[in-house]
Amino acid sequence: MNLPTAEIVCLGNELLIGVTVNTNATYIGDQLTKLGYEVRRISAIRDDVDLAADFFIELISRKPSLTIITGGLGPTYDDIQLEVLSKATGLELKENQEAILQIKNYYAKKNLKITKERRKMGFLPEGSEVLENNVGGAPGCYFKYSDIDFYCLPGVPTEMKDIFANCIRSSLKEKTKNELYEEKFQIFGCVESELAPFINEIKTNYQNLYIKSHPAYKDKKGIVIHISGTGEKGKEEVVNAKKMLQEVFLSNLSSINIQEMKD
Amino acid sequence: MNLPTAEIVCLGNELLIGVTVNTNATYIGDQLTKLGYEVRRISAIRDDVDLAADFFIELISRKPSLTIITGGLGPTYDDIQLEVLSKATGLELKENQEAILQIKNYYAKKNLKITKERRKMGFLPEGSEVLENNVGGAPGCYFKYSDIDFYCLPGVPTEMKDIFANCIRSSLKEKTKNELYEEKFQIFGCVESELAPFINEIKTNYQNLYIKSHPAYKDKKGIVIHISGTGEKGKEEVVNAKKMLQEVFLSNLSSINIQEMKD
Repeated sequence: MNLPTAEIVCLGNELLIGVTVNTNATYIGDQLTKLGYEVRRISAIRDDVDLAADFFIELISRKPSLTIITGGLGPTYDDIQLEVLSKATGLELKENQEAILQIKNYYAKKNLKITKERRKMGFLPEGSEVLENNVGGAPGCYFKYSDIDFYCLPGVPTEMKDIFANCIRSSLKEKTKNELYEEKFQIFGCVESELAPFINEIKTNYQNLYIKSHPAYKDKKGIVIHISGTGEKGKEEVVNAKKMLQEVFLSNLSSINIQEMKD
Repeated sequence: MNLPTAEIVCLGNELLIGVTVNTNATYIGDQLTKLGYEVRRISAIRDDVDLAADFFIELISRKPSLTIITGGLGPTYDDIQLEVLSKATGLELKENQEAILQIKNYYAKKNLKITKERRKMGFLPEGSEVLENNVGGAPGCYFKYSDIDFYCLPGVPTEMKDIFANCIRSSLKEKTKNELYEEKFQIFGCVESELAPFINEIKTNYQNLYIKSHPAYKDKKGIVIHISGTGEKGKEEVVNAKKMLQEVFLSNLSSINIQEMKD
């Protein structure tokens, strides 16, 4: 089954110089996967207009169904997300009255005036829909270009999550109608490479599923097997593949034991 | 000043589906920055040979000085890092006796035999140097292609860090001779957008420095100003820029106070 594809792009030097761990990408990757998207790439790129615009020109040529961008929507000089998108797409940045009103309301509550820097956050690519930010000053926005849905979000995690939860999740759910189903279990008493030949074999019968082993990092014990698929057919296949894997492991590796896992 | 450029590439579906936070990229970004590299991109890509090979063909055309790759060196069917690099560069994978010996020794200590899957980890791009893994079974490797230094590392964080610390750091230090110098301080009693016009002004006088404000996530109080530069000249400029910034903030924003920060 071909899932709609997605890319996640995170702007900000702090990600590249190792000051900030990119938990935004992890959150969005998890959400998009559960909504039935295949996330193809996560990219962290620098606050440099030319380099970033080149990046987006390449991205557009890859034609993902969806692109979610975080970071660089704020009032500071290196908040360049929309300038970059304008350069890459040719869409002009235009003052959006709904966005300006949101910005005014946000700063009015803090008894602060609208400066030139704050007003800049209300200039959106022409044709954009405003995505309301209930937590911070910078509104998000959505626009479509070259058949790609672009969602532009701030980089502060609480603001990004607020907009994702309130303005994006339900509309994507409506679009894909293809939710993910997943199962995992834990195996004790073997090393990962002993499992590989059996997984390879089962995998050939379930080309549409994601089947993967990895060490259980959290408690540092055992190997986790992760199986997932999308839609009704995927759910059925996940259940069957799990049963087959457990049977083949138990009948070939006498020393192991298997435990079910919850999230 | 033009720094040598670097890209970090992390292979693994677990990063794209939001199961694993990409702390490897943060660690390597921090290390490379301190060694005097400009990290241009961090990319997380799927365990798909064709998509990943296309990615590396693009990367090679961008000509970074250095590329560090993590993930996909192990014994399982989706450990495809070297296969992908072979496809993108045309370098053949050849059995490397030094790598095979390391793999044999690693599994011998665990009383395990060399299977076909484990032996696969000893096939490296022709001309590679082996990078010893003191923690896990998969050796890393280094090769040069199209004037780019490629370092291939496993994705398990303890193994990646072991190889980086023991086999990579000192040789990169020797190459760049350009260490980073950084200063930061914290400002209380204002919002970030009030600082923006002053930072913009100072920034125009120090084009080679990295100067950035961001909210102090950890204690959720105040704004952090981060200034860094490389080499002896950079150090001098960082000290001057910091002094100028503090002076201009204090003389324009009466309500603030400034605190020095340690790491």
